[in-house]
Amino acid sequence: MTSISPGQTLLERHRQQFPALANKAYFNYGGQGPMPQAALDAIFQSYEYVQRVGPFSNEVGSWVVREATETRVAIASSLGVSPQTITLTEDVTVGCNIALWGMDWQAGDHLLISDCEHPGIVATVQELQRRFSIEVSCCPLMRTLNEGDPVAAIAEYLRPKTRMVVLSHILWNTGQVLPLAEIAAACRNHSTENPPIRILVDAAQSVGSMPLNLTELGIDFYAFTGHKWWCGPEGVGGLYVRPEALESLNPTFIGWRSIIANSSGQPIGWQPDGRRYEVATSAYPLYAGLRAAIALHQQWGTPESRFQQILELSQYLWQRLAEVPHIKCLRNAPPESGLVSFQLSGGGNHQQLVQSLENQNLLVRTIRNPDCVRACVHYFTLPSDIDQLVEAIQKLSQ
Amino acid sequence: MTSISPGQTLLERHRQQFPALANKAYFNYGGQGPMPQAALDAIFQSYEYVQRVGPFSNEVGSWVVREATETRVAIASSLGVSPQTITLTEDVTVGCNIALWGMDWQAGDHLLISDCEHPGIVATVQELQRRFSIEVSCCPLMRTLNEGDPVAAIAEYLRPKTRMVVLSHILWNTGQVLPLAEIAAACRNHSTENPPIRILVDAAQSVGSMPLNLTELGIDFYAFTGHKWWCGPEGVGGLYVRPEALESLNPTFIGWRSIIANSSGQPIGWQPDGRRYEVATSAYPLYAGLRAAIALHQQWGTPESRFQQILELSQYLWQRLAEVPHIKCLRNAPPESGLVSFQLSGGGNHQQLVQSLENQNLLVRTIRNPDCVRACVHYFTLPSDIDQLVEAIQKLSQ
Repeated sequence: MTSISPGQTLLERHRQQFPALANKAYFNYGGQGPMPQAALDAIFQSYEYVQRVGPFSNEVGSWVVREATETRVAIASSLGVSPQTITLTEDVTVGCNIALWGMDWQAGDHLLISDCEHPGIVATVQELQRRFSIEVSCCPLMRTLNEGDPVAAIAEYLRPKTRMVVLSHILWNTGQVLPLAEIAAACRNHSTENPPIRILVDAAQSVGSMPLNLTELGIDFYAFTGHKWWCGPEGVGGLYVRPEALESLNPTFIGWRSIIANSSGQPIGWQPDGRRYEVATSAYPLYAGLRAAIALHQQWGTPESRFQQILELSQYLWQRLAEVPHIKCLRNAPPESGLVSFQLSGGGNHQQLVQSLENQNLLVRTIRNPDCVRACVHYFTLPSDIDQLVEAIQKLSQ
Repeated sequence: MTSISPGQTLLERHRQQFPALANKAYFNYGGQGPMPQAALDAIFQSYEYVQRVGPFSNEVGSWVVREATETRVAIASSLGVSPQTITLTEDVTVGCNIALWGMDWQAGDHLLISDCEHPGIVATVQELQRRFSIEVSCCPLMRTLNEGDPVAAIAEYLRPKTRMVVLSHILWNTGQVLPLAEIAAACRNHSTENPPIRILVDAAQSVGSMPLNLTELGIDFYAFTGHKWWCGPEGVGGLYVRPEALESLNPTFIGWRSIIANSSGQPIGWQPDGRRYEVATSAYPLYAGLRAAIALHQQWGTPESRFQQILELSQYLWQRLAEVPHIKCLRNAPPESGLVSFQLSGGGNHQQLVQSLENQNLLVRTIRNPDCVRACVHYFTLPSDIDQLVEAIQKLSQ
């Protein structure tokens, strides 16, 4: 589609595959990633295929099964797990809900949630508390951004009746990366006399941005979405369930995808793998879009090299922001992820700043708690875009 | 796009707007409807808009709210209810799950389900039974297809502790239409000393095929999908919740769309309307596709005139099938809906018949219980397509 001029760099060619990047400097990867044209094309082609061969036919039925299988395979490969551990969901929040509602909660059970979780997850936990008379406490992690130890903070809040810990891999507000392996070890060591503590991770900001091997991490449930750092379509996400936790996690929202039926259509059991938490008809044509997006990143480089690039760029953004008068970055040290959050010192209006930047085609967002602005960089962010953003912020914050 | 030749009928012009109809005779509207080109175009344009203006920006954020609102308005208008009663879901099964899991179940409560419900719904009810120690019984409605009274059958199964009745408006296997208003009245009259009986309706086959006024019907929960008779994209459906039932139906799967948050992002309450059962990020670009599909049907004629056309065509199909040796229609009388189910007498193989028909671009499907083949007609089905189907069946069943 695009002709390549001689002086064009590989990065410029790569970026031209994302139509959204053509007319703006984009820093909202943590909200939604721009889709590559290949992902859009794959989606449109899927719609055309379904209409041509179906929409409802034996052949399209087999295609749907294949598309779902291939998508679980592509996801699983990126997460270092087997495809059987993957459930396809509409979004990260549905994945969290599957884990939260699938536990066999008893009155008096304790759930520990961090103070940096997304409002929707907090509301689900509050409803669980009301319905099952469980005890909920909130572990202060936000204050460990610059000092203190999140592992110790969590260990301190564990109780004999703690059955689940809910936290994010990368905190969506501050960009802090939690040491999940150490947290999992702390939960295992809590007391061998207690029932195991299940760990549910909101992976909205980590999947697609950092190298992952969930088998090694030792956590139980890892909920993610394809439409942020993976740059896939909105409406497709997933949940990883550790094989050892599968049998004890009950399906809640249930449909024909969850079950095995006998010859007369009666349900006789759950699917043996992550499909038991899938429900019914989804927007199947989007699956090919997510796979195309994942493949594009893989063609660019390894997860490690892409994350390294993200860290270099976020450090550059953080450094440049730190030089701007009236701007205070939340972190005192270089970022651990692609998320850089900052505040207008002197009580400037963050919403106003974000809107003024959007008017100049510079896209960042506000966060309510802590009250701040968040800018994200991906591995393909241009330093010149960062310069443009920082200079605009400098002018607007004077 | 299409040039209209002088002899072309209005119906031919209308059908040309559905790419899927160009190369086949289609009878699987009850599985998935073919999408009009206008719906596909609206979806593709939405994707382009989101990439151009976002994907994540204040402007796209407002667009998402507007798209969801307009889609609830379009749906509500077709169902004879206010937009506040509508929840957008991924599919009909999710809608049923919202109603089933949102009840305040107590051990010993009774749930009555018909014997013609979809396996996924049956499995959800079985899981509710296991988790909350409720009592479940199954009301035999399949045998009322040709004789007997479904209202009396249901009334006979009601108990003092019956809290919910689960059934379909149009039975997906036999095409029978249940008299919902009479069933609702029977439940109300059951005993004024008992708590109210909530009625959950699986409307997979009724929405988009028959005229509806849910306000008059008097049922509590009505779950539907956009991708069958409405011919919208797979992955968008909804749930109607009767205003009187809203406060007693708890949200289960919860996310940022369900709640109201305060200035620091803490959840402080549910959305006041059907949004409280919506969860998080969906495939928003599909919403415009569903609206475009609904609008196309409205341009063709009133719901009453379209349903009348469906009934005339299904009667024609039923009559012609009845003339074929070795074929037995399940119904003894003309169909009440667009669904026509039939069997090969003498134990012929239905799967083989369906596959042989698909090889000739004649699309029907099998049903497992009762073991049969189902062919659906929509208001725009051609009598000549019906002729073609019946003649092929005749040849294959000899």
